[in-house]
Amino acid sequence: MRGLGTRTVVYQQNVAASLGLYNNDFLSVDILREKGPITAGELSKLTGLATGSVTALIDRLEKNRYVRRQNDPNDRRKVIIVPLYENKEDVIDTYLPLHTAMVTLAASYTDEELALISQFLGKASTVLDEQIDHLSSTTRSKSSS
Amino acid sequence: MRGLGTRTVVYQQNVAASLGLYNNDFLSVDILREKGPITAGELSKLTGLATGSVTALIDRLEKNRYVRRQNDPNDRRKVIIVPLYENKEDVIDTYLPLHTAMVTLAASYTDEELALISQFLGKASTVLDEQIDHLSSTTRSKSSS
Repeated sequence: MRGLGTRTVVYQQNVAASLGLYNNDFLSVDILREKGPITAGELSKLTGLATGSVTALIDRLEKNRYVRRQNDPNDRRKVIIVPLYENKEDVIDTYLPLHTAMVTLAASYTDEELALISQFLGKASTVLDEQIDHLSSTTRSKSSS
Repeated sequence: MRGLGTRTVVYQQNVAASLGLYNNDFLSVDILREKGPITAGELSKLTGLATGSVTALIDRLEKNRYVRRQNDPNDRRKVIIVPLYENKEDVIDTYLPLHTAMVTLAASYTDEELALISQFLGKASTVLDEQIDHLSSTTRSKSSS
């Protein structure tokens, strides 16, 4: 898991560099894609970045048409950040070789084995979510003390 | 895999923040721990960072006693970066809750299931290594053209 984690971080940095994006900008595109439209405050919490940094980050991503700001249809006082991720062919192209290689890897397992692996990856994701919550609250309480 | 990847990056950033380290400094500590002593040039290649940035990064890590520089015993003209990772109790403490949670998760699987999952994670790591090589060579050829 540790080795896979380090490679994941290096891989994501290489994808960001290949697209000409800052690491945190690209990470935010990924988070927005998974979470759907969220506010700048929520993005700040999920990335661990200060709100000022997130504002500049959204400006850059909006300029490059990775996201757009719009009023929340459920609450007009709120502004939400909407991912435009799927439209970006260069992102899809950059991920394509990984996608193809992972499909090939998956094809070497039976459906039953893949179900077990997927279940494990889902549970590992939940563990990481809990750990991120734990760490970010510990860091916040350290810096405010 | 995608969701797990994003969480891994956010988790690592939170660990780095909790330790008061830059993201790339912490990533380099992880890479050094896995690869063992390597030269600054090799670290530059593995992180995708420019050699100048890597020099400053090693200076910071040496100052905080995460690494030390020494002459390569096999080639005295070379300087290698030696990880001092295992000595740092704060790193171990920061990782401990994740380690405990992953051990608990693993305990819910049989030995046979864990062997399958480990094998998959190992193969996925190899896929990522290949993709990192592919991406970094593509980015290099783009920027030199």
